[in-house]
Amino acid sequence: MEIKEAIEKLDNLQQKMFAFNAASSALYLDGVTVAPKETSQGRGVALGILAGESHKTFANPEVGELLSFLEANIDKINERRARQVVILRKDYDQLSKIPANEYMEYAMLTNEASDVWHKAKEESNFELFKPVLEKLVQFNIKFAGYYDNTKKPYDALLNEYEKGVDMEYLDNFFATVKSRLVPIIKAISQKKQIDDSFMHKHYPVEIQRKFSDYLMEVMGIDRNHCTIGETEHPFTLEFTSQDVRITTNYKEDNLADSMYSVIHEGGHALYELNIDPSYDYTCLAGGVSMGIHESQSRFYENLIGRSRPFINAIFPKVKEFFPEQLEGVDAEMFYKAVNKAEPSLIRTEADELTYCLHVMIRYEIEKQLIGGTLEVKDVPAEWNRLYKEYLGVDVPDDKHGCLQDSHWSGGSFGYFPSYALGSAYGAQMLQNMQDEFDVFKNVENGDLTLVTEWLRKKVHTWGKMLEPAQILENACGKFDPTAYTEYLANKFTELYEL
Amino acid sequence: MEIKEAIEKLDNLQQKMFAFNAASSALYLDGVTVAPKETSQGRGVALGILAGESHKTFANPEVGELLSFLEANIDKINERRARQVVILRKDYDQLSKIPANEYMEYAMLTNEASDVWHKAKEESNFELFKPVLEKLVQFNIKFAGYYDNTKKPYDALLNEYEKGVDMEYLDNFFATVKSRLVPIIKAISQKKQIDDSFMHKHYPVEIQRKFSDYLMEVMGIDRNHCTIGETEHPFTLEFTSQDVRITTNYKEDNLADSMYSVIHEGGHALYELNIDPSYDYTCLAGGVSMGIHESQSRFYENLIGRSRPFINAIFPKVKEFFPEQLEGVDAEMFYKAVNKAEPSLIRTEADELTYCLHVMIRYEIEKQLIGGTLEVKDVPAEWNRLYKEYLGVDVPDDKHGCLQDSHWSGGSFGYFPSYALGSAYGAQMLQNMQDEFDVFKNVENGDLTLVTEWLRKKVHTWGKMLEPAQILENACGKFDPTAYTEYLANKFTELYEL
Repeated sequence: MEIKEAIEKLDNLQQKMFAFNAASSALYLDGVTVAPKETSQGRGVALGILAGESHKTFANPEVGELLSFLEANIDKINERRARQVVILRKDYDQLSKIPANEYMEYAMLTNEASDVWHKAKEESNFELFKPVLEKLVQFNIKFAGYYDNTKKPYDALLNEYEKGVDMEYLDNFFATVKSRLVPIIKAISQKKQIDDSFMHKHYPVEIQRKFSDYLMEVMGIDRNHCTIGETEHPFTLEFTSQDVRITTNYKEDNLADSMYSVIHEGGHALYELNIDPSYDYTCLAGGVSMGIHESQSRFYENLIGRSRPFINAIFPKVKEFFPEQLEGVDAEMFYKAVNKAEPSLIRTEADELTYCLHVMIRYEIEKQLIGGTLEVKDVPAEWNRLYKEYLGVDVPDDKHGCLQDSHWSGGSFGYFPSYALGSAYGAQMLQNMQDEFDVFKNVENGDLTLVTEWLRKKVHTWGKMLEPAQILENACGKFDPTAYTEYLANKFTELYEL
Repeated sequence: MEIKEAIEKLDNLQQKMFAFNAASSALYLDGVTVAPKETSQGRGVALGILAGESHKTFANPEVGELLSFLEANIDKINERRARQVVILRKDYDQLSKIPANEYMEYAMLTNEASDVWHKAKEESNFELFKPVLEKLVQFNIKFAGYYDNTKKPYDALLNEYEKGVDMEYLDNFFATVKSRLVPIIKAISQKKQIDDSFMHKHYPVEIQRKFSDYLMEVMGIDRNHCTIGETEHPFTLEFTSQDVRITTNYKEDNLADSMYSVIHEGGHALYELNIDPSYDYTCLAGGVSMGIHESQSRFYENLIGRSRPFINAIFPKVKEFFPEQLEGVDAEMFYKAVNKAEPSLIRTEADELTYCLHVMIRYEIEKQLIGGTLEVKDVPAEWNRLYKEYLGVDVPDDKHGCLQDSHWSGGSFGYFPSYALGSAYGAQMLQNMQDEFDVFKNVENGDLTLVTEWLRKKVHTWGKMLEPAQILENACGKFDPTAYTEYLANKFTELYEL
């Protein structure tokens, strides 16, 4: 094989993988947004076959040979392609261990599971979801062995979402977080609670949609390359750096819910939109890891979006959208309302302070499920027990309990910790950013240009060109979770006058 | 090869083709409904690669061998699979003549063309569309040669949409239609015109959406298997017999426009939804030809939807949706308004009587374009000339002229005649149906069950199991266009008291 021919094959392979991903994404997106209800079967067949074809294209001995050839000639190809070879080698070694039939079966299972989960959640019927969840857990335990059989299964899964992260790392991280935050949460429970009743007046969906458009504008998101859909569970999905979709879920009795979903998913979207477009159609496209992705979404949602300067900047406009609902409310009251800290049932609606405890509960359950010390049938009881222990709340039913998140139905075990890690990474990025310029001076003027530009240069533009650890190092220095815990401690001590 | 193995291969091949089609459909649907504006490039790359993969899978010598083997053993396989072999052989012989690179290039071109056409139409700028249209015409001329090089190119294309139909057949058909209808159109122009001004009051989109839901209900369409999207140009797209989508386009100053789009596309949808579900994932799924498909859509739209009994049945409900707009209007006035016959500019808004002339104009232009006697640059002038000659109207700009339809941008040359043929087939089906039961007695009661059941048995359920000619024969007897022309002549003579 000539180098030139090998490079052409490398490019073609990546374009094909892009096309298969785009196809599956389009089918998935359709399924969760506009498809008629009883149509998942056909989509499942299509997704299963496409997964099989994609597997056959990639987990093919010819690809292994191509990569070996390029590895032997790594000094003859440019840095970008060398990096592509590293990424593809890792994926190839993993994927070629998964038999094609299992891979297809799993693609069909997650499609079916999404449907079953929706129904189970709607009816608050865990029994309905149980058999699918059991299969999903078994598949993930098996896949973990394919990924890295030298690791404990859950460590192997965690490593997929955030390279280098394992249970030991997370146990330490969560212990730090827990010991610092739980006393603050307790102290708040003794204080007079913030009044956020005006956030729960009637907020018509039609106006909330326009409000979302405004928030996207403030964030500087180009709508010619990013739309907002509506789904049960908000998410971001990218086709290319030029084509990103976010979704939200409007609740007419809760303004903050969609508002912060949009800012959160908008953060994910900015990451994807700012990736070097010359990486499109290669494996360098897309965010580098879930932890880094969540660091961006939670950066905009909380560090910026729930800051006093941001609320001061947007509040006059918020009042224009909802003059009646916000009569008599000022920016400071609004700021307090969106930061009201109170143990609650639903993770996506949780405040910034108690949020990490929601994540910890999921982490504990996944650890046991994948570790084999908890049976699926016992998930609801364990969920409810942990919510009582960590947050002091009683779970009334599984809809507001273990059926609330879509992650497991999508086959994601090991994803949740990324939310907490991302929050911590973000806090450290903010610290470094503030050393370079007066962040909140800009935010107070409603101008996020410099903020986004800093993140673009340090994080976004790289796609997968750098390892997550390298991006983290560039943007934060050495990881130190106390930047995050101290940020929260200071914010909530001031807010609740502890 | 064993028969058993061959059958397994046959089934797998068809499932793969289904998956590739579903993938392309999902990407296409996304592109025309919810995708951000400036994102066609990535979709084009994905669609191009998927077309290439699909081509590689199907136009593969192994498939040729498989089909030859099954042809040699045709007495050992069941009737269904035998029919699949016939259909796949025809497709294989055609497709294997198209080089893979041309096939991919064409898939990317039609994706780009859709975008360019949208922009060109919006700006009424033919110059923008011209270069793409030129490429599309050249591709189609070339493809026609691949399809059947013993035929004239346009005959080869026509045969793709309706087997057995060629220019001679259509010239005769259109001559019959023209000679019978033009005098009626002329006679109407001497009479007092119907007042339909109330159809052009303000009809808010929100209420029109609910009205569409009502129409779907009257048609007996199960919404769990069929949704309504919104696009520039209404269409129907099926994934399986369980998953069909229609789209419409709401105009706030025109109630009839979306109303009849929904009934028309609903007719297509009923066809797809009623196909034997055991054909799903095989080449027997989907409507058999464009002519038969249009016979169903135009059956519901005109023969039923624009009949007096149908209007009598739904009018009380229509008035509930739009009480202010329809104040002082009765069912008879509404019936007359939706049947107002008047030469006009836009095909999709044309009345039942003048509609065929719009189709004829497109037929004449395509005949010349594909025949090589008309250059793309001269299309606008020729279009405008023919509108003046056939319909007596002056085309003010290309937006209301040759840029109005999406078909050419999608690469469809030879499709338009299907609309006229379908209308004629439908009229003959109605005649036969009436011999069996009192159709309009049912319609007057708002009950389309028997009508749809008749069409299901005679047409829908067969999918591609029978040839179009056979289905036509079963439902109509021998084709005779005078059933159609006489139906129109009678209807409009009574309506305008000619």
